[in-house]
Amino acid sequence: MEVGEKLLIVVAYDISITTENGTKRLSKVAKICLKYGQRVQNSVYECNIDTLNYKKLRNELIDTIDCSYDSVRFYNLGKNYENKIIHFGSKTINNVDSPLIL
Amino acid sequence: MEVGEKLLIVVAYDISITTENGTKRLSKVAKICLKYGQRVQNSVYECNIDTLNYKKLRNELIDTIDCSYDSVRFYNLGKNYENKIIHFGSKTINNVDSPLIL
Repeated sequence: MEVGEKLLIVVAYDISITTENGTKRLSKVAKICLKYGQRVQNSVYECNIDTLNYKKLRNELIDTIDCSYDSVRFYNLGKNYENKIIHFGSKTINNVDSPLIL
Repeated sequence: MEVGEKLLIVVAYDISITTENGTKRLSKVAKICLKYGQRVQNSVYECNIDTLNYKKLRNELIDTIDCSYDSVRFYNLGKNYENKIIHFGSKTINNVDSPLIL
């Protein structure tokens, strides 16, 4: 990997909004992810970023979630990712701040 | 890729349960994913399967979702995936069939 070379990082999270400050954490986590990438599903983002920003993204999210209740997963698809992603269905996404019945 | 060699496929879905039969689709999609892999977040599964089963999984899900409202994304992490996945936080997952306030 050359310095500054970009990777495709998929971020998926489950934030427990039934716990104290859960809705606040959900909103903050979504805003952090939007700084680094695009939202592709309600709680899934795709971030085309270099290793430095990947580290920053991880640190900001770890500082925000409550590890006892929330979960964040990162999937690194590397540089050549186009043929590693398949999507079927709608691309419409609900508003990030409204609690979601799923 | 040798025949039968296994890949790590991440499946992430958003099923719109506010539409007709949405809850039924949600439950069916979850059951299909459980046939092929393990649930790691409310609507994210990791499936360690060969290309033949990857195709079957895609076809079963496409036959189940309503493409106007639902979304399914597949991420192929390939054979050597261990260092491509990072997880922070809780591993507890809610019951797949009960509507989820997220």
